[in-house]
Amino acid sequence: MSIEYTVSKQNKIRQLRENAAYDQETVHEILDAGLVAHVAFVQDGAPVVVPMLYGREGETLYLHGARKARVIRLLEETGTACVNVTLLDGLVFARSAFASSMNYRSVTVYGRARLVEDWEDNKHALHVIAECTMPGRWAELRKSTDNELKMTGVIAIDIQSASAKISTGMPEDEDMDLDTLVWAGVLPLESRFTTLKPDDLVQEGVEPSDALKAMENTRL
Amino acid sequence: MSIEYTVSKQNKIRQLRENAAYDQETVHEILDAGLVAHVAFVQDGAPVVVPMLYGREGETLYLHGARKARVIRLLEETGTACVNVTLLDGLVFARSAFASSMNYRSVTVYGRARLVEDWEDNKHALHVIAECTMPGRWAELRKSTDNELKMTGVIAIDIQSASAKISTGMPEDEDMDLDTLVWAGVLPLESRFTTLKPDDLVQEGVEPSDALKAMENTRL
Repeated sequence: MSIEYTVSKQNKIRQLRENAAYDQETVHEILDAGLVAHVAFVQDGAPVVVPMLYGREGETLYLHGARKARVIRLLEETGTACVNVTLLDGLVFARSAFASSMNYRSVTVYGRARLVEDWEDNKHALHVIAECTMPGRWAELRKSTDNELKMTGVIAIDIQSASAKISTGMPEDEDMDLDTLVWAGVLPLESRFTTLKPDDLVQEGVEPSDALKAMENTRL
Repeated sequence: MSIEYTVSKQNKIRQLRENAAYDQETVHEILDAGLVAHVAFVQDGAPVVVPMLYGREGETLYLHGARKARVIRLLEETGTACVNVTLLDGLVFARSAFASSMNYRSVTVYGRARLVEDWEDNKHALHVIAECTMPGRWAELRKSTDNELKMTGVIAIDIQSASAKISTGMPEDEDMDLDTLVWAGVLPLESRFTTLKPDDLVQEGVEPSDALKAMENTRL
């Protein structure tokens, strides 16, 4: 059995509760499948949402950006941050507009954001983000310079609570609609990497590593 | 020439300014390509972000959800809402971790959220959302019942300001890194509809309409 996040006012899913999950395993699986997180913070009392690459290690999400970026400065000052990762898997064509919907995997995480200031922790966090977005790439690249590290801000969000919501499969129509002569079903949406394309400046004879080639044609 | 949104503190892009655009045409194009918006609001002083289907008509975004859903209730009470739509187009493998990045099309919209209460406006908004997400489907379906409409909450966000950020193409490495024997380039990510799958209850002889078939194998 996977550990469950405590259900509170904050993370409780109220609509389509049958699609909700609160276990760590499901939440981690979706976080690990996604690449872009939508991170919300408050600026002058108003909400702002920003897309960011991220990495997960255990119960911590790492985000990075320019050290001076608004999102880094404001997350540093914010209390609880909210992060959503959603993968859209298809459109569900039901027999009524009301029952029409989408298939998706979605996770919402709440946690306190903190700036990672310690030099070693900072490098570790960047390594985690790199491994989650470009597995194996970190080891192929030169070390970051001190100046590069100084220009990069890293935010850690330790997960306080989280929820997952997953919708799969076919429309759920009202019985009264089942006789209608309207087609119903799903149109899957696939997010898939295609084929590596080199830039013009790659040195002669240099090929992509096995780690990079392993990403080709994989799905999110 | 396309009309430009006024650049203010709210919508000004500070990082990678060369990727910023403020013209309506670019903003509309990305909004029309996307399917899921990430909508941020404030609950008890803390930020919350929720993924939602949406539709655009002119300078208005429409969102819908269960009438009683938190996001509908809180958007109704909120001042300015913030909405982000991001399409990830690939990973950019540079010759340093610092220069590594992603290719994407992203739009952030700010505007006042209001509940659409008028019955006819409500139906119109649902029609717009349907046309934007499932073009042509609305005309194939029965009319929504009064009860279905009562259970659906519609939020309109009139765009006050917006910005687009687009990243395409190859890594931009420092000159000092160009001699390295590391492969560099991009791995494109494609989000593509595949093939319509009927549910088991479709009446014999009923085929998907041309409008639905036209969506097969298209990309976001």
